[in-house]
Amino acid sequence: MEVKVLKNILGANEQLAEKNRALLDENKVFAVNIMASPGAGKTSLILETIKRLKGKTRVGVIEGDVSSSVDAEAVSKEGVPVIQINTGGSCHLDANMVANALASLPLADIDLLFVENVGNLICPAGFALGEQRKVIISSIPEGDDKPLKYPVMFHEADVVVLNKTDLLPYVRFSLDAFSRALKGINEKLEIIAVSCTSGQGLDDWVSWLEKQMTAR
Amino acid sequence: MEVKVLKNILGANEQLAEKNRALLDENKVFAVNIMASPGAGKTSLILETIKRLKGKTRVGVIEGDVSSSVDAEAVSKEGVPVIQINTGGSCHLDANMVANALASLPLADIDLLFVENVGNLICPAGFALGEQRKVIISSIPEGDDKPLKYPVMFHEADVVVLNKTDLLPYVRFSLDAFSRALKGINEKLEIIAVSCTSGQGLDDWVSWLEKQMTAR
Repeated sequence: MEVKVLKNILGANEQLAEKNRALLDENKVFAVNIMASPGAGKTSLILETIKRLKGKTRVGVIEGDVSSSVDAEAVSKEGVPVIQINTGGSCHLDANMVANALASLPLADIDLLFVENVGNLICPAGFALGEQRKVIISSIPEGDDKPLKYPVMFHEADVVVLNKTDLLPYVRFSLDAFSRALKGINEKLEIIAVSCTSGQGLDDWVSWLEKQMTAR
Repeated sequence: MEVKVLKNILGANEQLAEKNRALLDENKVFAVNIMASPGAGKTSLILETIKRLKGKTRVGVIEGDVSSSVDAEAVSKEGVPVIQINTGGSCHLDANMVANALASLPLADIDLLFVENVGNLICPAGFALGEQRKVIISSIPEGDDKPLKYPVMFHEADVVVLNKTDLLPYVRFSLDAFSRALKGINEKLEIIAVSCTSGQGLDDWVSWLEKQMTAR
């Protein structure tokens, strides 16, 4: 019974995700689903990207959180359209929540839409939102074994942004072990190492993003 | 339909958790459910505690992970009984998984049982395991806004261990903001600040634990 219900939920979600995708395509919006553990730097990466794309690419943001609106408040200070979704306990965004948010966003004025998922390295992987790309942020202090422990998420991703490289001198983290663990899961997965604090690597991330938007 | 299924699942889980609790009581085992984001330091805290309790308190460990057995391997090097649960995709431990693990542990030889939950700051909160205490580890690099964003988990906890204080000089984190956010959720919640790397605060943590075991 549980399995059947879950299948129905996932099937219905997939259909809604396709509708979202069609709406986004119609409005030429490139949507990126940003997934990570709590505190890995999802909002920081979005904020830093907005600053670097200012005047070039019109960004919009959907903020997903179980509770609070602190992330949406931070983003709105950058002067971009933003909608906060509070999932009310649910551990991931789903296509229906995103559909509701899309209806409140000025899609004609957005080129790039960041959808910041709930901080969770497991559940969001199962729910398509209608996005063009899936980005995982993993951060140095979380440790180099995260791909081994949360393989599904890393298997689904289009790219891994490895954040907080400024903390490398202070924690035990082997870039080599991290890369090897990732290769075992998804051989083609690119790693972009960045620090949202020092700015290191952010140009590489923005270039990757712009290349994806051109390629679609 | 979904809600009804969820209620049934939670009800059945609660009954199994009571059975686990009775079995643990019968064997005079004090069980502690350790919950946190991925990479907050659950395994590190368990390892450091085992070292400090050696010769005084007989520790056992249940390791919960979506995948891999790296944590159980690390713990077994300390010479304590350990069982790895792989949830096979599930984002939290439940009482049934713990019941199966208990059946394989030498309970008569264990005074203190750590149950390391899956790295997740949302889903584990809803599933009782039969534990005596719930501990949340929050870590400095995750940021001081985590209680605001994941209130249910912090509401359920008996204590918050704030780990990685050695990184305080290198990241933006306000202890005051963290404490204030916590007070809004659970006024009596104690915070024990530690660093599993430098050892700072670990004696306070061990004292708290010993006090709880005496009080039961």
